[in-house]
Amino acid sequence: MILPLGLKTLVNLIDTRLSELLATDDVYTKRISEAMQYSVLAPGKRIRPALCMASAAACLGSENDGLDAGCAIEMLHCFSLIHDDLPALDNDDLRRGRPTLHKQYDEATAILAGDALFALCFEILSSQKPGELAAKAVYEVARCSGLPGLVGGEMLDILSEGQPIDAETLKTIHSRKTAALIQASCAVGALFGGGNEEQIEAMRKFGHSLGMAFQIVDDLLNETSTAEELGKATGSDKERGKATFPSVFGLEESKRFAEEYTQTAISSLEKMPGETAVLRELAMFTFERRI
Amino acid sequence: MILPLGLKTLVNLIDTRLSELLATDDVYTKRISEAMQYSVLAPGKRIRPALCMASAAACLGSENDGLDAGCAIEMLHCFSLIHDDLPALDNDDLRRGRPTLHKQYDEATAILAGDALFALCFEILSSQKPGELAAKAVYEVARCSGLPGLVGGEMLDILSEGQPIDAETLKTIHSRKTAALIQASCAVGALFGGGNEEQIEAMRKFGHSLGMAFQIVDDLLNETSTAEELGKATGSDKERGKATFPSVFGLEESKRFAEEYTQTAISSLEKMPGETAVLRELAMFTFERRI
Repeated sequence: MILPLGLKTLVNLIDTRLSELLATDDVYTKRISEAMQYSVLAPGKRIRPALCMASAAACLGSENDGLDAGCAIEMLHCFSLIHDDLPALDNDDLRRGRPTLHKQYDEATAILAGDALFALCFEILSSQKPGELAAKAVYEVARCSGLPGLVGGEMLDILSEGQPIDAETLKTIHSRKTAALIQASCAVGALFGGGNEEQIEAMRKFGHSLGMAFQIVDDLLNETSTAEELGKATGSDKERGKATFPSVFGLEESKRFAEEYTQTAISSLEKMPGETAVLRELAMFTFERRI
Repeated sequence: MILPLGLKTLVNLIDTRLSELLATDDVYTKRISEAMQYSVLAPGKRIRPALCMASAAACLGSENDGLDAGCAIEMLHCFSLIHDDLPALDNDDLRRGRPTLHKQYDEATAILAGDALFALCFEILSSQKPGELAAKAVYEVARCSGLPGLVGGEMLDILSEGQPIDAETLKTIHSRKTAALIQASCAVGALFGGGNEEQIEAMRKFGHSLGMAFQIVDDLLNETSTAEELGKATGSDKERGKATFPSVFGLEESKRFAEEYTQTAISSLEKMPGETAVLRELAMFTFERRI
């Protein structure tokens, strides 16, 4: 995976900060801390924290205004991956090119490490300043991770396996399972970057559209890449009868959708007062990425 | 279980509010919503929300100031019970006299319903007013539910199964697994009831001591009651080689500890400016309860 330059700078800052936030000298919880680090510090694209930082800059804030909140959201993202990979859910053995957490440790540790990352996300978000903004950020992220977001999307995804599915339900799954948290990353960045309501709403729209494009491209890559390239099993969506954009709309129509969502995302940036180069770069990177 | 009168009045308010907060017309997440309701609305003592409300009153606030926050904490408590009961953790089949959630539904639904309750807890807490207090409440509850609290305590509990255990580790398990969230319930109630730092700290101390007494009495009941009385399997702690107060200190010494913690709890109430009758009642009820 070759990251664009603006993004690469942010990813270095994010990786350093994630290590700091996950460091602990608590002797009683060494094993679970190590499990959390194993998951979060695995090489990742860091799309969500990078979006959070870049969204702060788009509102004339500094990129650093979105750093800790972005890291908190990355932890929440990892929590959702850990739980989704569990045997009772997607039962995946490989993630980011390494054994999934329950394979490396065990199921109990994976469930609890996920829960601990969820808690740590809200601990970090709620301690941002000023408190008024911290509460808004927690609300935004909590909504996007519960029934109206991640968890609801995952449940719907599981229930839809092997079932005939309509286009509306498929979009709802993608919107909740993927787009919601990407939307929250952008909104929270805008919030801490000093954005007004209108700007935060524009960043929500950017994040939602980018998130939809991101998931459609993921569906397409899952059909056309090798396991080695992806760092996880491929074609598994089809084997499980998972609902994907290619399976419902076909390859060409899916690509058209991804392009449309990317264009909508980029248009949402027009009225932003600050720097949006990295956000545009991220949108194009998402659309064009091969891995 | 016969509740004291002051507590009973609060429990009725709490049960009504929990139903309202869990109501949803989201067609996509009907199954998981029902699972959440199955767990949370099962008959329970509602100790944590009752403490939250009573702690608000102890700071000269209204009991209602702690109602929604207390319900949010009750949801988090249920999340922790659901995950602890899972086959990979404590593997329990019975809870509050009914099948545990993964028995009634399935493991995937139980994991996700737990996650959704966790998210909903923070959604509710973060939308309390003013935002400055909401952020503090989220921080208090997030700390008490992550590694320094519930999750860390549960991990330590599992790792200690069948191992020789020292008194300090046992106290750490009980402090994190049980006392932390009871402490947070009291602190958050005091916060929303308008308490100052000193009063909030006094309520933390009350909650911690009460929580320790609560868990010790639970350990004692687990040794001396029938499954029918408890609504869950008894003696299972011993079979699993779980660390309990009676197993480390013996029955008599454990009772003495429970009494000491209860007295410390009640002494912490001395400087509270508001009504503390229900809190005293709760402390005595915890110490004297048979079931």
